[in-house]
Amino acid sequence: MIKHFFIGSPIPTLEQKENRLNKVRALAAFSPDALSSIAYANQEIFLALVVAGSSGLSLSFPIGLAITGLLVLVALSYFQTIQGYPSGGGSYIVARENLGITPGLAAAASLLVDYTLTAAVSLTAGVAAIASSFPILWEYQTPLALFFLLVITIINLRGIRETGTAMAVPVYLFLVTYLLMLAYGVIQALLTDGFVTEFNTLPASKPLSTLLILEAFSAGCTALTGIEAISNGVPVFEKPEVKNAGKTLLIMAFLMALLFVGSIGLTQFLNVLPEGQETILSALAHRILGNGFGYILIQISSTLILVVAANTSFAGFPRLAAILASDGFLPKPLTQLGDRLVYSYGIVTLSALTGLLIILFKGDSHALVPLFAVGVFVSFTLSQSGMVLHWWKTRGKNWKLKLTVNGIGAIATGCATLVIGSTKFLKGAWISILLIPLIVHMFYKVRDHYQSTAAQLSLSRINQKRKKEIQSFSSLRVVLPISSLHIGIVEAVKIAKQISDNIQAVYIEIEPDSGIEVKEKWEKYFQEIPLVILPSPYRSIISPLLDYLDKYDRESADNQLAAVILPELIPAKRWHQILHNQSARLIKSSLLYRRRNLGFQRVIIDVPYHLNE
Amino acid sequence: MIKHFFIGSPIPTLEQKENRLNKVRALAAFSPDALSSIAYANQEIFLALVVAGSSGLSLSFPIGLAITGLLVLVALSYFQTIQGYPSGGGSYIVARENLGITPGLAAAASLLVDYTLTAAVSLTAGVAAIASSFPILWEYQTPLALFFLLVITIINLRGIRETGTAMAVPVYLFLVTYLLMLAYGVIQALLTDGFVTEFNTLPASKPLSTLLILEAFSAGCTALTGIEAISNGVPVFEKPEVKNAGKTLLIMAFLMALLFVGSIGLTQFLNVLPEGQETILSALAHRILGNGFGYILIQISSTLILVVAANTSFAGFPRLAAILASDGFLPKPLTQLGDRLVYSYGIVTLSALTGLLIILFKGDSHALVPLFAVGVFVSFTLSQSGMVLHWWKTRGKNWKLKLTVNGIGAIATGCATLVIGSTKFLKGAWISILLIPLIVHMFYKVRDHYQSTAAQLSLSRINQKRKKEIQSFSSLRVVLPISSLHIGIVEAVKIAKQISDNIQAVYIEIEPDSGIEVKEKWEKYFQEIPLVILPSPYRSIISPLLDYLDKYDRESADNQLAAVILPELIPAKRWHQILHNQSARLIKSSLLYRRRNLGFQRVIIDVPYHLNE
Repeated sequence: MIKHFFIGSPIPTLEQKENRLNKVRALAAFSPDALSSIAYANQEIFLALVVAGSSGLSLSFPIGLAITGLLVLVALSYFQTIQGYPSGGGSYIVARENLGITPGLAAAASLLVDYTLTAAVSLTAGVAAIASSFPILWEYQTPLALFFLLVITIINLRGIRETGTAMAVPVYLFLVTYLLMLAYGVIQALLTDGFVTEFNTLPASKPLSTLLILEAFSAGCTALTGIEAISNGVPVFEKPEVKNAGKTLLIMAFLMALLFVGSIGLTQFLNVLPEGQETILSALAHRILGNGFGYILIQISSTLILVVAANTSFAGFPRLAAILASDGFLPKPLTQLGDRLVYSYGIVTLSALTGLLIILFKGDSHALVPLFAVGVFVSFTLSQSGMVLHWWKTRGKNWKLKLTVNGIGAIATGCATLVIGSTKFLKGAWISILLIPLIVHMFYKVRDHYQSTAAQLSLSRINQKRKKEIQSFSSLRVVLPISSLHIGIVEAVKIAKQISDNIQAVYIEIEPDSGIEVKEKWEKYFQEIPLVILPSPYRSIISPLLDYLDKYDRESADNQLAAVILPELIPAKRWHQILHNQSARLIKSSLLYRRRNLGFQRVIIDVPYHLNE
Repeated sequence: MIKHFFIGSPIPTLEQKENRLNKVRALAAFSPDALSSIAYANQEIFLALVVAGSSGLSLSFPIGLAITGLLVLVALSYFQTIQGYPSGGGSYIVARENLGITPGLAAAASLLVDYTLTAAVSLTAGVAAIASSFPILWEYQTPLALFFLLVITIINLRGIRETGTAMAVPVYLFLVTYLLMLAYGVIQALLTDGFVTEFNTLPASKPLSTLLILEAFSAGCTALTGIEAISNGVPVFEKPEVKNAGKTLLIMAFLMALLFVGSIGLTQFLNVLPEGQETILSALAHRILGNGFGYILIQISSTLILVVAANTSFAGFPRLAAILASDGFLPKPLTQLGDRLVYSYGIVTLSALTGLLIILFKGDSHALVPLFAVGVFVSFTLSQSGMVLHWWKTRGKNWKLKLTVNGIGAIATGCATLVIGSTKFLKGAWISILLIPLIVHMFYKVRDHYQSTAAQLSLSRINQKRKKEIQSFSSLRVVLPISSLHIGIVEAVKIAKQISDNIQAVYIEIEPDSGIEVKEKWEKYFQEIPLVILPSPYRSIISPLLDYLDKYDRESADNQLAAVILPELIPAKRWHQILHNQSARLIKSSLLYRRRNLGFQRVIIDVPYHLNE
């Protein structure tokens, strides 16, 4: 009932239908990650440069421009991916089809890592944005981030239709308020001659070095995360899908560039510096809008879009996991649609992993970012390289131009991958670099298991095997272990008689000599069924029974294993179980899991008897 | 294998034999709790009086003498209990036989609480004794106490013979070193005229009041704990049991009195005050023996006897729990003898509860003591009152004298119970006072459950029921749910055919229209068995199956429930289970626990198929 309240009632499978999005709703659905990443990208660039003082910070804008250049390249590359893979060209599919299974799986692994980190980074950065305006919240970073995670998880478990609507508001609120603020800032500065070219001197704790600049660049590259989202989701667009998706991508890239260049430029040329724990974007908003309503609105909309950005992962991760699972690289249950026609297992898995990251990194987005850009750029590079081969193989119209664009994209993102991987290695990128091959290895292990299972269960082995068995058709021998004489036993005997005329009861004698009494009673009620008394000098129930079963099978001529019929008392309340011997349970699990040889094992017949109270 | 290393290999039931103790070994086995309680009793009296400064501390000795008087009374009372109950007269048995079931259970509950607290207090006081000589250990109070608990638990799980030997050494070491020290202290003081009658002035933070004196008295009453142990264990003594047990009790009481009066008297008349965190007995040993080897030896032997005292609980708790369990007031497994012929469940339960107390009270014996004396004195009082009635009823030789002795004992311990309960109420006694009726309530709940179970399972209902069933003897209907066609199904079909000629296969169609394909395949292999396709619009496996089974049963004429035969794949490794649908498991548990009506429920036939890799 609680489940229905939060998740909603189940939806029949037949109501599953395509829920196409127009450009406005598609932008809301796919862009939050991409647009909001300017929040942490700005912050990371600032933190990387501030150690070199004023001379460091004076490089913010040039670095921002370089990243914007990379953004344009990557956007064009993905624009082409949309043309080449109109049915949705996630990095996994593009890399797998063009480069081979292992590169495809590497792209998939980096995407899974990336989705998880995006969720964690977005949520923690969202908390940072709101805590910048209400500093008392800094103390509660982790619980707040976990709370937002819970909300996002529930919304996603409810299903995609609600998701679309829930997201449009924050995205457009963010776009409108932010663009207005940037425009207002520029105009204000022009009118009051507020732009500075000479900076206040800020002391440097480190000299400005090439390494430092590269670090700032790597840190800022997180601005590009989320740009690939549209290329994965082409089929969700209204027709003509390819055209609409392409346009939406270009609009989104333009907005990303505008927000990024605008905010980083204003920050530098208004000489904005944060006070205390606040983020650099909060400091910029403070400078432009003062302390009033406008400022609070900006911070709230930053928080909202960041929380919604985490949602991008919740769309991407479960879908990719389901694709991988249906290809046999992840557990099959990930392909199952839950009550609300969403991949519930994938959503819950992502939520658990994200929660773990937030707890481990104490809700600090700055600590999480270094792990994160590597995975994104590995998948960018693999996907772009795949596209190069794609154009080379298909050779359609303008293939040389297209190949060149993707080729430049591949080289640029490849170089960025190397820069990020090396400059951020010790700060955490090593974790992702280590994780990706491990995950690929796991993919293969899972597939191996499924393949081996399928081979063992193959129907092709049926006919021969079956013929032999039908020929040797004899009555099933049944063994009935008893611990005392009670009414549950009567039911078990009745069933045993219905299914076999070869029944053997056994009593395991734990208390020495208790067997005589039991045997007398037994013969009074069931004289037609033989009872064996098995002594158990060490008071174990299991091992004398197993030994007896083995001996009994060896001595019989029918070449099959005797079935065990177990009367099981089921108490009315769960806690009552500690008041009863768990013998039936113990016997069941030791029969079920005792691995003697492969293939068919001993049949267990469970005769439940429900108790009152 | 690890288990065998720590616990030892199993012992056959037939090797169980009486392992009688002579007086010397019996004293070692039963006295550690009683003898060692002087350690914390001294400490508690000191802590209660020190707040009233020198004038408070000058009352130590008189209070000590009063407690010793009580000790003599209680010892004489228990001496008579031994005569009256030569087969072992634990408070539970004495109170139950003479006062009725509820008082008996109240005594049992207080004893169980008391045993647990004794173990916790002894272990933590033992740690305090060793930490007094090695102050660095104060920081590790909790882990050290838990370590000692672990050692005691393992020794007890190994069985009683090892326990007897392991205990004799510390007990006699403690007796010899302590009595020597006290004698040395007296002689030294006499020779050097060291006794003081005028005390250093010590500032008082509270005035000396009657309440304070009563508090000190209550605190000191913990010296009596453990005195009842011998009366529980009469049958373990060498013949003549009663005489030997009685003598041993008197020797033990004499030694207790000597140690208690000696140590508290010397502390007062040598004007001993502890420094820093050390215990008062450590301060006394310091004063008499200085700082050298003698002092360290005394502290180590205090620690050892306190640890061994915890062992008294490990002898008493499991035995009492087993008696209660065989009377149906506690879960039956507590009566089972483990590999080494000890009540393993009882030992493990006590160990867990004690560990919990140590952790909750952060290894501080002073915080635990107020909880503890109440339970002891409640059981003293109940047991003595029971003895009064016993003599009244039996009226043997000298019954009036005996009745008088136990009567005085009952009144004295009853008054002490009231004093302790009221003065220590807020400090923790309320916990025990609350716990005892709760435990009694639980005893009754457990018994009610067993009685109701026995009635439901009674053989007296067999004959009638059985006759009807044998008359309506028809073939068992079998339902076989399948999720796909594989070799495991072949085994299930084979078994089904062996046990029934009425088989119905069902396929639950989660993916719409997938049933057609499955049906075609099915008919190719098993055309003789009908297959029903059950649509599952909400993608659930369980509910369509359960609905179908109900409908199938209603439509059949045989008035019994169809059995369900479940092919179950067992992966080679446990973690592989997440790679497979847990359908068989889910179906089993929902069939087993779905409570529809009482009595016999649907039979489940499990056909395991073991996978390779």
